Amino acid sequence: MTSPDASPERTPRPGVAYLTSSRVEAFSDGVLAIAITLLVLDLVVPARHQTPSGTLGHALAEEWPSYGAYLVSFLVVGIMWVNHHTVFAKVRRVDRPVLFANLALLLCISVLPFPTRLLAEYLTSGPDSHLAAAVYSGTMLAAALCFTLLWWAVTRDEHLLHDEVDRQSGRAALRRFGAGGIVYLATIGLSFVSAPLTLAVHFVLAVYYCFDQLTVAAPPPS
Amino acid sequence: MTSPDASPERTPRPGVAYLTSSRVEAFSDGVLAIAITLLVLDLVVPARHQTPSGTLGHALAEEWPSYGAYLVSFLVVGIMWVNHHTVFAKVRRVDRPVLFANLALLLCISVLPFPTRLLAEYLTSGPDSHLAAAVYSGTMLAAALCFTLLWWAVTRDEHLLHDEVDRQSGRAALRRFGAGGIVYLATIGLSFVSAPLTLAVHFVLAVYYCFDQLTVAAPPPS
Amino acid sequence: MTSPDASPERTPRPGVAYLTSSRVEAFSDGVLAIAITLLVLDLVVPARHQTPSGTLGHALAEEWPSYGAYLVSFLVVGIMWVNHHTVFAKVRRVDRPVLFANLALLLCISVLPFPTRLLAEYLTSGPDSHLAAAVYSGTMLAAALCFTLLWWAVTRDEHLLHDEVDRQSGRAALRRFGAGGIVYLATIGLSFVSAPLTLAVHFVLAVYYCFDQLTVAAPPPS
Amino acid sequence: MTSPDASPERTPRPGVAYLTSSRVEAFSDGVLAIAITLLVLDLVVPARHQTPSGTLGHALAEEWPSYGAYLVSFLVVGIMWVNHHTVFAKVRRVDRPVLFANLALLLCISVLPFPTRLLAEYLTSGPDSHLAAAVYSGTMLAAALCFTLLWWAVTRDEHLLHDEVDRQSGRAALRRFGAGGIVYLATIGLSFVSAPLTLAVHFVLAVYYCFDQLTVAAPPPS
Repeated sequence: MTSPDASPERTPRPGVAYLTSSRVEAFSDGVLAIAITLLVLDLVVPARHQTPSGTLGHALAEEWPSYGAYLVSFLVVGIMWVNHHTVFAKVRRVDRPVLFANLALLLCISVLPFPTRLLAEYLTSGPDSHLAAAVYSGTMLAAALCFTLLWWAVTRDEHLLHDEVDRQSGRAALRRFGAGGIVYLATIGLSFVSAPLTLAVHFVLAVYYCFDQLTVAAPPPS
Repeated sequence: MTSPDASPERTPRPGVAYLTSSRVEAFSDGVLAIAITLLVLDLVVPARHQTPSGTLGHALAEEWPSYGAYLVSFLVVGIMWVNHHTVFAKVRRVDRPVLFANLALLLCISVLPFPTRLLAEYLTSGPDSHLAAAVYSGTMLAAALCFTLLWWAVTRDEHLLHDEVDRQSGRAALRRFGAGGIVYLATIGLSFVSAPLTLAVHFVLAVYYCFDQLTVAAPPPS
Repeated sequence: MTSPDASPERTPRPGVAYLTSSRVEAFSDGVLAIAITLLVLDLVVPARHQTPSGTLGHALAEEWPSYGAYLVSFLVVGIMWVNHHTVFAKVRRVDRPVLFANLALLLCISVLPFPTRLLAEYLTSGPDSHLAAAVYSGTMLAAALCFTLLWWAVTRDEHLLHDEVDRQSGRAALRRFGAGGIVYLATIGLSFVSAPLTLAVHFVLAVYYCFDQLTVAAPPPS
Repeated sequence: MTSPDASPERTPRPGVAYLTSSRVEAFSDGVLAIAITLLVLDLVVPARHQTPSGTLGHALAEEWPSYGAYLVSFLVVGIMWVNHHTVFAKVRRVDRPVLFANLALLLCISVLPFPTRLLAEYLTSGPDSHLAAAVYSGTMLAAALCFTLLWWAVTRDEHLLHDEVDRQSGRAALRRFGAGGIVYLATIGLSFVSAPLTLAVHFVLAVYYCFDQLTVAAPPPS
């Protein structure tokens, strides 16, 4: 963790307060790991005294919105973690705007169990399903925006980056993140058409990002 | 953490995106530590107003399925952690398939509190106990398969491994993991005979793996 | 983590038991990350069978005290983490008083979900809102005092600090922390005037500290 | 983390599988941090619709057993962490018995929220209070025994230790841990006299260990 900071790279600008990135990564990893694991608390086991003998299978099958929402949210946090890892592999120091953007992103991620629970509860409830799906999609949009903000904050000042990082490709990635934001904005609209379809689209998006983002993953510091 | 990556070992193949393994380990450790600790939330304290004075001992004794399921799941996650540690001690870099296999494994582990709760609630409930035990056994099978997948992903490309790792012994371990999968498949069948017996077999398997897997544990990087 | 400890800095005083700071930081990071993420468990999803069809929006809007208390507590823990990071960036070794002060601070932070839940539940409840707000403000005061105590414990003995740390500026920061304590004491009084106003003031204080504390953040070990 | 393992100390015995201690520490830190933070989930906020207006203070005061049990358990896990840190500062490699003893200790610690909840619920309930206190005391005894076991496992083989560690003082510490076990055994007996007194004794023991154990804390690797 400390080795990269000891190497003679770009010197920090005088008068600016920087923080090392290792504890930011450790804290973020902790929040991401906890958020992804807390999701399981909302997979509800049907109460035994309310489940007539022999009907557990039926009772579990009726909980399918919980499983769907759990799976999609799990994938989303997993991808967030990979992306976060990818961004911070390029970062040498963090300053105040980076820390703010990171805290805003962690807020979006750690709040995710709430819209997940909300969508699972109301996915099949007719009129209220639209609002639940819109809240879920809105959280995804907010996370995408915070991620774009984080990327902008990191690439806006080359003193924050390792030497080998190319600012040009950084800007290209910024445009791609922005495009992702537009897609998430569209899912808010889709929420008012069909909540189950919206969840399906979020699943497809998560799988797509699994494949896509990883190809821009950072090469290891050789 | 960074020292091993800095040593002059096998060079990465050009054009392939690798990630360093240290943050993968840190994130996985976090998920495993949280999953193993969240299990305690399902050890239910009998509500005082529903427990006639002097009957707490009886009320606690009736919760024995919770304690059994807790203990077995705790051991399983503990062994998963040791195995995960053992695998990643051999890993120098991770690429996309490794990251996918690891995320699938973390999904199986972090969902474990749900089948644990389910089995605890229905272990003594006659017909429904079989389904609950089958869901529990199925989760174990899925985790074993993901672990085999992870091991295959790691050993399929020697650029991902430290120099000292022998691919031959890696393949032997892969066959042993596969054998474990067959055993877990058998526990799904056993679930429809007896749920308590299935839990007992999972306990025996966990203790067996405690002894067995540790003997193939990685020697430290001397 | 270990590199700073290996550098030839001030030698420890003989006969005094010191601990390295890296595991203290790792444990504190864990507690902070969990406390900030557990807050989400108190964002209550309205039960579907108690929410007449089409009234989810109304039911969610009524939960605004939960969202407000969540956001303020999230910011406070986030700032605590930045401050904790800042303090320990200056620390080379920890001794018993530092460990005690740190444990007391972690107690205040990890208990925070309780007063947050309390304030969210009673924020709009007339007479009881004052007590809930006072408990919340009291927790903030206790955390601020523990932080001041930690800072005092760290700066009272230069053997605990890295060479470059200036004790003079440490004392100035101590006075500033003390001033923060007086402000938090005032919020306890304000609680008995208006609970919502008290929450608003805590929000303003959190945003203020976001900007303020970061400017005294430690420069990276060059 | 890796630096100490790279130093030319005692060579491992051939044919024995060792693991490095850094991931054992990271996983244990995670479990300890989560266990200590999960305790807050059992601080119950009185439901607003069951609390007549103006009686929140009274309702909170009635929850004093929760606060007492929370505080004692928090201190106990905090001390466990310091002790765990102290033990592993002396450890260079871990083998199978150490890993087993550590896993058993983590089981005792991560289950602690359950007896804490149990004691809080039944502390003032007459006859059932004795059983609840005995379960709590029994968990403490089990943790003390596991800790003694861990210490024995670590000091039984000098290949596991750093060079500077003195086996003589290790044996002395083992005797002191054993003495602690006898004290915890006595608290089980005391549980059947008075549950509140038992909780008070656990508080005094925790504070005593705070002061005592830290004096045998490891000096930093100079």
